[in-house]
This record gives sequence, structure tokens and C-alpha cells, in this order.
Amino acid sequence: MDIIDQLIKDLESIRIKKPLVHNITNFVVMNHSANVLLSMGASPVMAHSLREVQDMVSLASALVLNIGTLEPKWIKAMIKAGKNAKCPIILDPVGSGATPYRTETSKLLLNKLKITVLRGNASEILSLVSEKATTKGVDSVHSVDDAIDIAKSIAKEYNGMIVAVSGKDDFITDGINSYKCSNGHPLMPLVTGLGCGLTATVGAFCAVQKNYLLATAEAHCFYGICGELAGEKAKYPGSFNIEFINALNYCGENEIKRLAKLEAI
Amino acid sequence: MDIIDQLIKDLESIRIKKPLVHNITNFVVMNHSANVLLSMGASPVMAHSLREVQDMVSLASALVLNIGTLEPKWIKAMIKAGKNAKCPIILDPVGSGATPYRTETSKLLLNKLKITVLRGNASEILSLVSEKATTKGVDSVHSVDDAIDIAKSIAKEYNGMIVAVSGKDDFITDGINSYKCSNGHPLMPLVTGLGCGLTATVGAFCAVQKNYLLATAEAHCFYGICGELAGEKAKYPGSFNIEFINALNYCGENEIKRLAKLEAI
Amino acid sequence: MDIIDQLIKDLESIRIKKPLVHNITNFVVMNHSANVLLSMGASPVMAHSLREVQDMVSLASALVLNIGTLEPKWIKAMIKAGKNAKCPIILDPVGSGATPYRTETSKLLLNKLKITVLRGNASEILSLVSEKATTKGVDSVHSVDDAIDIAKSIAKEYNGMIVAVSGKDDFITDGINSYKCSNGHPLMPLVTGLGCGLTATVGAFCAVQKNYLLATAEAHCFYGICGELAGEKAKYPGSFNIEFINALNYCGENEIKRLAKLEAI
Repeated sequence: MDIIDQLIKDLESIRIKKPLVHNITNFVVMNHSANVLLSMGASPVMAHSLREVQDMVSLASALVLNIGTLEPKWIKAMIKAGKNAKCPIILDPVGSGATPYRTETSKLLLNKLKITVLRGNASEILSLVSEKATTKGVDSVHSVDDAIDIAKSIAKEYNGMIVAVSGKDDFITDGINSYKCSNGHPLMPLVTGLGCGLTATVGAFCAVQKNYLLATAEAHCFYGICGELAGEKAKYPGSFNIEFINALNYCGENEIKRLAKLEAI
Repeated sequence: MDIIDQLIKDLESIRIKKPLVHNITNFVVMNHSANVLLSMGASPVMAHSLREVQDMVSLASALVLNIGTLEPKWIKAMIKAGKNAKCPIILDPVGSGATPYRTETSKLLLNKLKITVLRGNASEILSLVSEKATTKGVDSVHSVDDAIDIAKSIAKEYNGMIVAVSGKDDFITDGINSYKCSNGHPLMPLVTGLGCGLTATVGAFCAVQKNYLLATAEAHCFYGICGELAGEKAKYPGSFNIEFINALNYCGENEIKRLAKLEAI
Repeated sequence: MDIIDQLIKDLESIRIKKPLVHNITNFVVMNHSANVLLSMGASPVMAHSLREVQDMVSLASALVLNIGTLEPKWIKAMIKAGKNAKCPIILDPVGSGATPYRTETSKLLLNKLKITVLRGNASEILSLVSEKATTKGVDSVHSVDDAIDIAKSIAKEYNGMIVAVSGKDDFITDGINSYKCSNGHPLMPLVTGLGCGLTATVGAFCAVQKNYLLATAEAHCFYGICGELAGEKAKYPGSFNIEFINALNYCGENEIKRLAKLEAI
């Protein structure tokens, strides 16, 4: 099946199955990521207590770990949830490279858990292999092109873990096969949490598509298309965010066929 | 006085008195619940530290407890606030039934505190009496009809505590007298925290109307009407949420008289 | 240079330099404050762990401390970040006066750290010198006029710290020189976190303008103008908030020249 047809089919599956996506994520984006998942058709739950993550993840079809607004207790919960997960695990190393704590935690989670998909911006991904790479807070100071080779080598190092580097173009690889997605809109970085919402979206697609490389590529394409749809209707970040949430709900076959820019490379 | 006229009068009281509603609620909805309360005319405050909940609740006209994104420390704070409350206490057992931790905490709070109103979806309410009932994350997998008898028996067990079961229709009972509300809109479950915002709204109405059964029924009717008003203006979840917040502000006598579907049963 | 021209120039600097503003702020407003900063052109980061605040603040051009939803651990993090800050520190004593814990914490931070700008509503500022002043939750029960003399005396007591009292009119002083800003819109208090977002905005202006009294005055004027621009487009709190975020992005020379009401007094 053609990759675009498969995306349309998998999006439909999300809307029919409403997979439960368990998020252990940061305080800034909890509300937004929940709305992202709800609007596209998935069923989000946020739970981080050591007392319940094991039970919650047992119900989930995907586990999304996000290290923004990190605290030691949350890392323990992420590890406990991850160790007990029977579903794909998506890791967003928010701000890795900005502080040693975030970089070390990202590496710790990569080493302690079997991460299915690692998704970050170029600076975050580069920080995982280089002491020199730095991040300005949570925003990337590198281009995706800078990170392609590193992404491939990380994917190989972790036995075919999917690595997705997001930016103007997105690069998604398992170390051998790769996709490039060119969807997206310049207003997206002006809304907080849109990167985190993409990670949650990868979770939703991995919940319905067991080829996780493909699922991750599809998620990037769908999410970027929704950004473009929002950009057709809104000029400024406040309205853009609302139109983006709307688009996650109405975007379907027509919009995807019109706008998708996703290719195997 | 007719129940609809009483609702209009009590809503007016909220807008005049601006009652302080103290929320100990989950991270996902804090911002949204605060905006729900502000827009309708109440005055929200969020405070959860053991160091200040006793002082804060002493200023409040209602206390709203919500167990989403639960942690042990927060349970202690809920109990401390509840023990010191001189005002009505509203409990939202978010996700009760999904994990033992949430179910047990809901029961603990019901037993340790004099809860005035318990408000949840059908799965959450059922979980409080049955080991079999399960919840899919925080979304209901049962209909309100399944929960009516259980709601009545819980209300009686807790000496006339108000129990409200929300869904397509809402059922509100003190075990003897009951109301049914049929307001609401299908987009409401696609915005995160709308259930939690309803619980906060019950708090606002209980702050101005001492017949708590009536206050709870009024809150459900008002909230559902605002959902319908939003649905008249918006087709998708992002815009719907904004129009819903708007409606909480402008909804008044005309809208309530036109749309209210609330009856004693 | 004229003060309005300087505001236009400093806003332009924010948009060019995109200063990193490190926020240790409350759960209610984290998402909103991040969007406020992003939309105007700054680069927000939220980080509160004792394990990383020292590293994060070393990258920042401003540190914003906000005591809403306070907890002991967060106070320690605020002190650690503040002690290590090489940049201006802005303090928002949210709800000071409502509980002893908040009032004491505000005083503790003022005494332990070299605060550059203190920004609050009249009740919050008054609470810092008077046992009698009280706050209703987080909303002011005093007018700015009540607080002018107190603001001046606090500014002097803390060696020329800038004190900003926000309300219908805003009053900004270093104890000797003062500004009055009359921009703003009546819907602003109906959106949660708009005060906190103003504090974050003061951080962004202090990051690019070393005359911190001027920077604080400029921030209030810019922020109030954006409120007025939003009020030209929206009648209710939900839409108002979206239009406000939009305005932070598009407000420039034309809007500022048309609407600014800022004067040295």
C-alpha cells in the first residue's frame, strides 16, 4: 500500500479504536497534549505517580515520556512505567543539551528502557552524543541536516530504535531505512508544546501501526499537514493554535492527499 | 420558585458575589478550570500545599477536590483542606476505576471527609461500589442509565450526599429526590477538562445556593447550555473550547429560558 | 529618546535577540506564560528542579519567579536559581496576603535575593508591609492608588528595587522616579494568568533594556496595549485570550503610537 494511503488508513484506525495513550509529560503541555490527542481521536491519560503508573500503563496502547519540567520523582515513575509497558514507548528529550540534568536523564532513559521512538529537535538529538552540542532552553539551535548522521548512528546503537529529528524538514530513521517529511508551518514554533504534541501524536500512530518507523513518519506528516491547514486560516499564534487543534479533528483523506510531503529516502 | 428561574437567580448571585472557589485539582486542567470559573463570574484559587490549604479554605465559599494526576502529598492536602472547610466540598473522582490507586483514594476521601457533592462519569461512579466496573483511562465506558441505581444507593450510604452522574443525560440525586438534565453537546468530551470544569462549576453554584441538590442540578444545566451555545458557533474542538468559555460569560436569562432541559424526576 | 520610541525599539530587540526567559512559575499559568513570551518574540523555558535551576539560569537573560501554587521545594529552587542568576530577577508575589505562607515566602524571597523588579496587584504589594491588608484568593481588593506610597517605600527599603503595582492604572517606581501607565482592558482580569504573563513580559523587556525602571514601564504599556487590541476584536474572555496572544505577536510601531498611555510622573 502507498504510504499516503496507509497514513489515511492508520488515522482512521485511531479515530475508530481511540487508543489510550499514557503520558508522563511536563506541566507546560499537559493540557495541550491531551487536547491534541482528543481532537485527533485518541484517548489521553496523564498519570505520573509511582503508585499507579504500573496499573495505568497496563491499560495503554502507547506510553509517552517527556522530560520537560523534570524532577527526580518523575524519572523514577518514567522508568517504572517503561519497565512495565507492553506497548511502544516514545521518548521526547525536551531541553536535552540545555542542562546536564536533562542530557543525563535522556541517556538514562535510553539505557534503562527499551525506547521505541526517540523524537526531538536537532539540538536535543545532537546533545545525546556530543558534549559540544548545546540547546538554547528548549529551542533548537541546529538544523535537521546537522543531525541526520547522528540520528542514524543513534538508531543503530539502540538496535533499530526509531529516531525522529523535527524541524523545517523532519527526518525519521531506524538507522537503515529513512523518511523525510516536509510538512509544517512557520508558526508552529511560536506555540508552546507543539513539539511535545507531536511526540504524543507519534504515540497515537504507534498504537495502531506496528511498523513503528512508518507510524512515526505518518505522525510527522499528519501533524505537519494540520499545521499547514491552520496556517491557511490563522496569521498569528493564538488563533493558529486553535485552528491547529481544529485541524487535528477534521483533517482526513482530502487534506492529506492535497498536502502530504512524505517520502522514503 | 420555578427551577429555571432559580437557576437564573443563582447564576446572577455568582456574578454579583464572585465567590472564592478553592480548587485542589489536577495539573491538566488547572488553567482551564480557573478560566471556566472566571468567565462565569466566580473567583478561582488553586492552592495545594499542606502549608497553606487550611488558611486558603478558610477564605473560600466552596472547596473542589479533583484526583486527576494524583500524588500522595496531594491526598494529604485534600484531607487537610476538607477537614478545615466550613463550606461545601465537591469531589471529582477522575479516573476512579482505571487504577486501584484512584479508586482507593476516592473511597478514602469519601470516608474521611464530609463530601457535599460527588460528581463523575458513569464509570467513575460505578467503580466506587463494584470491583468489576472499569474505566478506560479517564473516559467513561458506561452509560448514565447503568449508574442511576448505584448513584442513589451511594447517596443514601453517605447520608444524603449529592451524587451527580454526567454523560449524554446527567442524573443528580440525594438518594430520595432526583433531577435529570439533558443539556450538553457531543463536542464536550473532545475537550480535555470539561468534566473537571463542571465539577468546579458545581462548586460555584453550591457557594451561592444552600440547597445543594438544586445547586448541583443548576450547575449541570447551565454548563450543558453553554456547551450547546458553543456548538451553535463552532464545529471543531479548538474553536468549541473558546466559544464554550465565551458562553460561560454571556449566557444569561434568554439563553437559559431558550435551552434549559432540567426536570425533577 | 522619547519613551514611546524606546519601547518600540526595545520590543524590536526582543524580537531580534529572542532572549531566554527562565520561569519558575505556577502550574496554572505555565502554558499561558510560555505562549505569551513566544508570541511576543522571546524564548521561554520552564525549569524548577533543584538539580538544574543553576544550569538553566546561567543561560538565561531574565529569571521570573512566581509563587502561585507554592510548595516548599519550589521555594528552595527559586532561591538557588536567584542566588546563581547573573540576570535581572522579577518576582510576582501571587496571592501574597491571602495566606501567611504566601506572604512569608514573598518576604523571604525579597530578603534572600536581589530582586530587580517586584510586580503584583495592589493587595499583594500592600500585604508585604501590612498585617491588615488582605487578598481575596489571588484577586486584588485594593486600588492602585492605595498602594502608591507603599510601593515607593518598598522600593526605597530595597535599595531602588523596581516596584510595579498593576490594576486599572499601573504604577511603576524605583522609589524616586515613577511612571504611570493607563493601558489595559476590563476583560484582562477575566482570563487567568494575565497578571503572571505581565510579570514574564517584564522579564523579557528587562532582558533587553538595562534601565529596569524603564523596561518595566515599557512592559506594562506594551502588555496593556495588547489587551486593548484584543478588546477591539473580542467581547468575551475565551476569544479575548486568543486575540491577546495574537496581539502580542503583531503589535508594533503603529499600534504602540496609536494607543500608548505611558508617562513619567
